Amino acid sequence: MTNTPKVQDIDGGVTAPSGFRAAGVACGIKRRNPALATAPLDLALIVADGPASAAAVFTTNKATAAPVLVSREHLAASGGMATAIVVNSGCANACTGEAGLKAAHDMAAAAAAAAGCKPNQVLVSSTGVIGVPLDIAKVKAGISAAAGELSASGSDAAMRAIMTTDPFPKSKAVVVTTAAGSFKVGGIAKGSGMIEPRMATMLGFLTTDARVAPDVLQRALRRVTDETFNAITVDGECSTNDCVFILASGKSGVEITRDDDPALVAGLRAVSEHLAREIVRGGEGATKLVTVQVTGAATREDAWLAARTIANSPLVKTAIHGGDPNWGRLVAAAGRSGADFVLDRASVAVGPVEMFVAGIPHDDRADQAAEVMKGNQVTVTVDLGTGGAHAATMWTCDFSAEYVRINAEYRT
Amino acid sequence: MTNTPKVQDIDGGVTAPSGFRAAGVACGIKRRNPALATAPLDLALIVADGPASAAAVFTTNKATAAPVLVSREHLAASGGMATAIVVNSGCANACTGEAGLKAAHDMAAAAAAAAGCKPNQVLVSSTGVIGVPLDIAKVKAGISAAAGELSASGSDAAMRAIMTTDPFPKSKAVVVTTAAGSFKVGGIAKGSGMIEPRMATMLGFLTTDARVAPDVLQRALRRVTDETFNAITVDGECSTNDCVFILASGKSGVEITRDDDPALVAGLRAVSEHLAREIVRGGEGATKLVTVQVTGAATREDAWLAARTIANSPLVKTAIHGGDPNWGRLVAAAGRSGADFVLDRASVAVGPVEMFVAGIPHDDRADQAAEVMKGNQVTVTVDLGTGGAHAATMWTCDFSAEYVRINAEYRT
Repeated sequence: MTNTPKVQDIDGGVTAPSGFRAAGVACGIKRRNPALATAPLDLALIVADGPASAAAVFTTNKATAAPVLVSREHLAASGGMATAIVVNSGCANACTGEAGLKAAHDMAAAAAAAAGCKPNQVLVSSTGVIGVPLDIAKVKAGISAAAGELSASGSDAAMRAIMTTDPFPKSKAVVVTTAAGSFKVGGIAKGSGMIEPRMATMLGFLTTDARVAPDVLQRALRRVTDETFNAITVDGECSTNDCVFILASGKSGVEITRDDDPALVAGLRAVSEHLAREIVRGGEGATKLVTVQVTGAATREDAWLAARTIANSPLVKTAIHGGDPNWGRLVAAAGRSGADFVLDRASVAVGPVEMFVAGIPHDDRADQAAEVMKGNQVTVTVDLGTGGAHAATMWTCDFSAEYVRINAEYRT
Repeated sequence: MTNTPKVQDIDGGVTAPSGFRAAGVACGIKRRNPALATAPLDLALIVADGPASAAAVFTTNKATAAPVLVSREHLAASGGMATAIVVNSGCANACTGEAGLKAAHDMAAAAAAAAGCKPNQVLVSSTGVIGVPLDIAKVKAGISAAAGELSASGSDAAMRAIMTTDPFPKSKAVVVTTAAGSFKVGGIAKGSGMIEPRMATMLGFLTTDARVAPDVLQRALRRVTDETFNAITVDGECSTNDCVFILASGKSGVEITRDDDPALVAGLRAVSEHLAREIVRGGEGATKLVTVQVTGAATREDAWLAARTIANSPLVKTAIHGGDPNWGRLVAAAGRSGADFVLDRASVAVGPVEMFVAGIPHDDRADQAAEVMKGNQVTVTVDLGTGGAHAATMWTCDFSAEYVRINAEYRT
């Protein structure tokens, strides 16, 4: 497949690819809003028609939540095969000790019974309050109910069931056309909304009907995740529960044998990048989606280090919030990042407006740059001036007083 | 000197130790407030009666400002001897290219002429707006004026002349009594106030009349700075101009031969810790001074890594601002820091209230912890649960909507 693959948007989220059904139900873990007629969805089930290749990327946080431990163990025990993904929202099952670990195992076992597979062919995930026991009876009842509602149009319900305080749901699917035929990739995600105390997690669940061996799928997911889900930041925080799962059913008949296969990468990337950007756009208090581009880095690591430092800099993010084309803060953030940086050759642009060129300020362009910053999408570009060819792109949001208000609220 | 040294507060700042005079004058770099009768002080001169041992710790930011480059060069060329420190506020002389480098050299040369020493025996420092040329004519006139006003009671004027938008000035001096006699240590500092765009720098200037060789002084300054000026954070940003300088006149006759001499360390630490904590207390929008204690770390590096991550965590800092004893955010920040962390043995306390003990939450103590958090000084303690004996203490401030307001204001 040397031709550029054709990637087109379709509907259907995780149930767009062949061989998957999904459901989302209310099982009573999330508190019910008395003003609303129905209880909030809080349990999602995604089931493959048979054993699927599976891969995952997990949080690097060492305060690892029980479901992360169990899913990692299952993936290793099953040799990268899974039939079901089960997710609850409203309770993270994190910092819950031995009881939490048992609850995560029980949750997987219940989903396995419902999906007709072994427990180690279930990936399990939770998001919500930290340090509160998971009510496993409610979860089991939810799994039974969800199993009865599984359908090839169930992605939307599943998508809503994994939300906590996200301002909007996130879904994407594409069809990838290649010389060997077409296959689909779909996904749903939730972002971090900390409106309730002790909540924050990024979850992404992907499916595809391409035929991909588990090890190839794992490498491809890692490759794409590093430049999408791992290339976003709201506040630099990494949760105890973060994970991205993918299942590949093989039902399209299109076989992929390499993790750098352009069609597979293009499909995964289209879905993952969309979901990742939507997570940032829905970040707490966010009013602008900010693309941080770093160029001229001596190494790949330096490019990412500088991009991450800029994307997490409170001074950069508040300046963008205020519409201030403050190139000095971008230079200072790049300079303190630890990446190689040559001040006399470094440059900074806000959108297309070059504010600092090879070490020379152009403050006369500030009004022009301020105009660019009025939009709800802003790109800032920093060239590190080393002459290196490495680059990185990260997405972040601006930093508003609303973020502080949301996160300073005391609701214990 | 094996006895515990006696350290007592005295007045006088950098001119408390024998052998130093200082002055602060207005030279017209800072904009004048038309409502005020006098122009703001913006040039400080600190002069030793003769060549003094000198040492410095500089910013690690690679977008290094011209005065930092010049001071580093002078310290190397003079073999660690200096007679004068000259500082201007209102213009950082950063991102100013070759012209900026020449201006910093000219500033040093003018101070050298005034102090009667070689140019390479002058340490130079600037703070203020980035990317704006330094008006060297004003600086030279200021140095002449300051030279005429040098006095042994000039520390307060110098202290005010180095301020940018600090809410209050910062000064400290102590006398250290040892079996071999007594010596003094004094200091002044400025913190980071970003009320005006592109301003932020931490500067600390210390003096002592102990007799200390330059290499011993350098190691002692590094040792103490790491646990004081380098152990504070407002927003994790590190400026292009940060520096801490020290001059040792030897005039007390008390000779110090080791960088771990308890009397020298106690004196430097008393002055540096006070100034560092004052910088945090005066942080942008700060309403609380927060002490972050990390214990149970496997290594010294891990202890500092975890402390720094917690002290810079937006979620931790907003929770403290809101008075929310949110131990989950402390656990999550420690867990993502990269330090070794054993969840089942980790503990978190807010003041004396243990919220999370060896992996078990104690949410019933939340009201008690919330009461502790109402104070304007809050200590949080996180034990990483590794059983290691390493610990670290950092100081930070809470994160308020006022911080965002200050830094989002567009004044280009």
